[in-house]
Amino acid sequence: MKKIAVSILGGTGFGAGELLRLFLNHPYITVVEATSRSESGSNFSNIHPHLNGFYKGKNFVKELNLDSFSKYDDSFVISALPHGESAEAISEIYKSCIGKNIKIIDLSGDLRLRDRGIHSKYYSNTNFHEEIRNQAVYGLTEINRKKIADANLVSNCGCLASSAILPLAPFTAQKKFPIAHIAISSVTGSSGGGKQLSQTSHHATRHANFSAYKALCHQHEPEICQSLGIDAISFVPHRAPFSRGIFTTTFVNFTCIVSSEWVKESLTEYFRDAAFVRIVKDSPELENVVGSNFCDISFNVRENTLVLTSAIDNLVKGMAGTAIQNLNIMSGIPETTGLLSPSLRPF
Amino acid sequence: MKKIAVSILGGTGFGAGELLRLFLNHPYITVVEATSRSESGSNFSNIHPHLNGFYKGKNFVKELNLDSFSKYDDSFVISALPHGESAEAISEIYKSCIGKNIKIIDLSGDLRLRDRGIHSKYYSNTNFHEEIRNQAVYGLTEINRKKIADANLVSNCGCLASSAILPLAPFTAQKKFPIAHIAISSVTGSSGGGKQLSQTSHHATRHANFSAYKALCHQHEPEICQSLGIDAISFVPHRAPFSRGIFTTTFVNFTCIVSSEWVKESLTEYFRDAAFVRIVKDSPELENVVGSNFCDISFNVRENTLVLTSAIDNLVKGMAGTAIQNLNIMSGIPETTGLLSPSLRPF
Amino acid sequence: MKKIAVSILGGTGFGAGELLRLFLNHPYITVVEATSRSESGSNFSNIHPHLNGFYKGKNFVKELNLDSFSKYDDSFVISALPHGESAEAISEIYKSCIGKNIKIIDLSGDLRLRDRGIHSKYYSNTNFHEEIRNQAVYGLTEINRKKIADANLVSNCGCLASSAILPLAPFTAQKKFPIAHIAISSVTGSSGGGKQLSQTSHHATRHANFSAYKALCHQHEPEICQSLGIDAISFVPHRAPFSRGIFTTTFVNFTCIVSSEWVKESLTEYFRDAAFVRIVKDSPELENVVGSNFCDISFNVRENTLVLTSAIDNLVKGMAGTAIQNLNIMSGIPETTGLLSPSLRPF
Amino acid sequence: MKKIAVSILGGTGFGAGELLRLFLNHPYITVVEATSRSESGSNFSNIHPHLNGFYKGKNFVKELNLDSFSKYDDSFVISALPHGESAEAISEIYKSCIGKNIKIIDLSGDLRLRDRGIHSKYYSNTNFHEEIRNQAVYGLTEINRKKIADANLVSNCGCLASSAILPLAPFTAQKKFPIAHIAISSVTGSSGGGKQLSQTSHHATRHANFSAYKALCHQHEPEICQSLGIDAISFVPHRAPFSRGIFTTTFVNFTCIVSSEWVKESLTEYFRDAAFVRIVKDSPELENVVGSNFCDISFNVRENTLVLTSAIDNLVKGMAGTAIQNLNIMSGIPETTGLLSPSLRPF
Repeated sequence: MKKIAVSILGGTGFGAGELLRLFLNHPYITVVEATSRSESGSNFSNIHPHLNGFYKGKNFVKELNLDSFSKYDDSFVISALPHGESAEAISEIYKSCIGKNIKIIDLSGDLRLRDRGIHSKYYSNTNFHEEIRNQAVYGLTEINRKKIADANLVSNCGCLASSAILPLAPFTAQKKFPIAHIAISSVTGSSGGGKQLSQTSHHATRHANFSAYKALCHQHEPEICQSLGIDAISFVPHRAPFSRGIFTTTFVNFTCIVSSEWVKESLTEYFRDAAFVRIVKDSPELENVVGSNFCDISFNVRENTLVLTSAIDNLVKGMAGTAIQNLNIMSGIPETTGLLSPSLRPF
Repeated sequence: MKKIAVSILGGTGFGAGELLRLFLNHPYITVVEATSRSESGSNFSNIHPHLNGFYKGKNFVKELNLDSFSKYDDSFVISALPHGESAEAISEIYKSCIGKNIKIIDLSGDLRLRDRGIHSKYYSNTNFHEEIRNQAVYGLTEINRKKIADANLVSNCGCLASSAILPLAPFTAQKKFPIAHIAISSVTGSSGGGKQLSQTSHHATRHANFSAYKALCHQHEPEICQSLGIDAISFVPHRAPFSRGIFTTTFVNFTCIVSSEWVKESLTEYFRDAAFVRIVKDSPELENVVGSNFCDISFNVRENTLVLTSAIDNLVKGMAGTAIQNLNIMSGIPETTGLLSPSLRPF
Repeated sequence: MKKIAVSILGGTGFGAGELLRLFLNHPYITVVEATSRSESGSNFSNIHPHLNGFYKGKNFVKELNLDSFSKYDDSFVISALPHGESAEAISEIYKSCIGKNIKIIDLSGDLRLRDRGIHSKYYSNTNFHEEIRNQAVYGLTEINRKKIADANLVSNCGCLASSAILPLAPFTAQKKFPIAHIAISSVTGSSGGGKQLSQTSHHATRHANFSAYKALCHQHEPEICQSLGIDAISFVPHRAPFSRGIFTTTFVNFTCIVSSEWVKESLTEYFRDAAFVRIVKDSPELENVVGSNFCDISFNVRENTLVLTSAIDNLVKGMAGTAIQNLNIMSGIPETTGLLSPSLRPF
Repeated sequence: MKKIAVSILGGTGFGAGELLRLFLNHPYITVVEATSRSESGSNFSNIHPHLNGFYKGKNFVKELNLDSFSKYDDSFVISALPHGESAEAISEIYKSCIGKNIKIIDLSGDLRLRDRGIHSKYYSNTNFHEEIRNQAVYGLTEINRKKIADANLVSNCGCLASSAILPLAPFTAQKKFPIAHIAISSVTGSSGGGKQLSQTSHHATRHANFSAYKALCHQHEPEICQSLGIDAISFVPHRAPFSRGIFTTTFVNFTCIVSSEWVKESLTEYFRDAAFVRIVKDSPELENVVGSNFCDISFNVRENTLVLTSAIDNLVKGMAGTAIQNLNIMSGIPETTGLLSPSLRPF
């Protein structure tokens, strides 16, 4: 049985907690180290109390020590550092990893956008890290499987972006019917904003509330366009009063009438080998995906209008789950290893 | 001081409960009677336990007895009966009210649609009630104030419809810039489905869940088109895990570039005299409208795309509040009487 | 009509927001000023966005200017400053108010405890402010009405404390049956912790969560004992995933068997003139009190065990509502003025 | 590798859904059949949509056909039928299973209480089923491991009861310090009431609400007493606005002062071999147990008062998880097989 080592940069956030949870179900992976500047010396479960009893003796460290990787067949560094810090840290590791068979997966948005101008419009960090950016393969498994398999550095997809790219990919990939306009309304839970405190995630005012944010100016809008190879979309994300999950409703206007059969066939064909995409008859529901790596997709058609609805767990399919999916194929093991669990329902 | 009598048909549902709550704050209104077949003889607060201590001695009755209306300056019957039952009951009352200065407001959807074919496509009741339908004025105050003032029968607006019509009305009312397409994504709480039990309102599976329903086939889609005088929209409502409130995001594609200034001016001008519509700078939030009769509207513009966001309380501005607004102007008293309260926040 | 001036110290928190909301419904009160160090110059509704359109032209000020009080029949300063800051600020105002007919209500816990040792065990501020503490009357209206009517300085009750004191008061007030032990389990929403950010009010981990905190060491435990004149209780508060409301379950063990009739009579008799206490048959529910000033109380008896259940809105009956109740009687106007509204339901 | 067959009686409820979810993670178990009168012929995932893609080809059947059990090393029938129906169905199967090495686990409350009088006071079904009741071993693994290992029929513990029995067992098991009184306050989510519809689980009024129910008269009160071998407790369950989880706060009054050290030692010693009980320092939190089979327990001591707090997932440790734990030891395989997963956090 293959032995895979994983070290985590930035081990205290929600994304890292989710990696640690999912790794417990993965037969090949050993977590070697996880870093935290503020919590070094603490056991993982001090910060992630649901992991109490697991990872006994595993404490956060200040910095990675990649030497121990030599005992494993494959070695991965996954960065769960926040935007703005991640590329910097990866850049250093990348250099020291050359020739060492260490692969890197970045969960942050730092290296996702190809265009310098667009990047600087949406992200505050000024260092473009061109040398590693050019190596970074976009890490949404279902649309980029082959390139990911050969990559040494993967820039994992954005959570909101994933939920919109997956249902759209079958239609932007083919040129059969021209698309006039795409409008996307996404709804996200409070874990999407990470563990740091903010007024918009204060329970007292997030509870039973709902609002839009960054309408037409969210950083995942250009990520969606770049991934799908399209010029423009109208993207509006919303804050909802649940903790986990993203639900995305996409309105596609074609320049001609399209049939329900063609839509169904396009989806089915495109996702024929995608174990984690389920084309469902009724509307997707968060309860059917939360905690799991599934993306459920449904659709409605009327004349030239196609409505796509999709649901994912932002921390699994939108982050840690897809990272493990990518790790699996970068490591040559079955893509679904350690990931085939259903959601919790009721939730 | 004017004395206004109100009788309620169907007094046990959420809409009737909200009328009873709001009337407590209205200086002119006396609730004369409220009907319930199953609960006749029970005090109002047996069914609406938050009204405990109010409406002492007021019990539900099996049928209305309109005789007591003679002691009041103005008299109203408000029907809070469900779709399919309401028009039938109103039809009978309407006949017996002729010449008696009794006005009627229907909260149901029974009489909203003008076109027989469209009505029968979206509503199950086969009786079209043409004679009273022709008399029924569409009751969304802000877009129909004058006709409502003169009406004897008002068909109150639908809750989801209201949240979409209000932000759109300033733009469909003027013909300055042609609109290419309108896509509307609405999110509603569980009180929108009424008090009757259903799997989609079971707390265990509604909690932390999110889904779409009746995409492109909801009965408020033709209501929005009819009210705005437009041909087609793409309307998708969603179920969210809160109890009260509707948040609507509307994507308008113009055939040319529009300016933020024009949009702002259009909204401000249209709602200059609308006490309950607030044009807000940041995104509307449910917490700022729930419990109140306000509709908060915001917008974002990019080239030919306008995004409108709006928030209302489905049981107030989307139902009982607008009904009282209509009652006020039908009665010749200030439109805001009894309705100028802010929302609860935090909620 | 009497004209009452109110100035608020610390106008940006949830408690102050609730005062401002409730004052809109009060016929006699004018809000003269509200202070904020960080937000001076901003309109009230910048911080309390649900008040948008109300309090036009009213901006936060750095410091109170009590001169304008002279135009009013009665004048009040209400401090909504946090624990530790409030007594300090009140102390200064108190001196300058002597002989000026300005009364003060403190919402903080700074002046509630009489015993210096107990105070310093539960509160971090070292200054005991003995001179004003001796003047401060405990402000839970239902148990202290007469003293409050004559007070110049009221130390408003704690929210959790109120929910426990009210149901217990009828039984500790009489000595008919000795009590062996009292155990109190309280459940509070996230607004109870105020607007400041903390990990325990992060929506992502508060949502769908439940935990105990400060078991047997919460500062309201001695407040309950002091108010009821009893030696010891076992008090455990809990964090629940709602925003507003406190539900308290109290187990009273008598040294002998008690009857349901005696319990009912004791409650009914004690609260005969209490407009805001409702003895209800079934369990109280938060939905029947939230947004209102009511405290609903129910009970169950078996042999020598009495279970009391009570529900309040922590920001109304547990804070701003009781403050206004106190203000009303300190001002000689009916206790219920501006406060007789039902809760929102559904919520 | 051992092959274990499981058939489920009553496969459509929340409990059965949870069994089906957990079995996916169990290396030895094959689900042979699941019954449903109303849904026979439907795939499992039609009713449990989160299981979409799992259990392909598995449809509900009208009645069990136990013949297929012969191919397996061990065979189990688990009844997830509702109270009142379960004992009846089990009674028939029990007879036909004699000598066939088929073991039965009943998730209902039908066979839990030993005393006929007490049973009939709390359960509506009149048939006492004495013959099988005498065979039924109480199925809370941690307190009854040995008897369960030898049982052919296990009556699985009640969910609320489990959450109270576990923290209390170390103290009632030893007679070192006499207990004067025990008061238990439990808080449960809406999934505890099952999938059937009721006003108390309507999302619109359950959301943000909180209430007590069956205070001093809940059927788990005698179950707790019977299991712990004690005479009386005061038990009050509450409905909270989350879907999954039970949090229980237990006040124990000893007749003498007890020390924190003794309490800690008692808990640690009692649960030394209990893989699913974690003694935690801070308060338990639902987020750390929901979705998992853990019971987290914490405590606070002051003089003669001990406060125990405990948290479980009602559908896992309170039902399906403990059932699998019992199945494991009845089958002679490690107790933790298929059950060692952490909770979801954030949730």
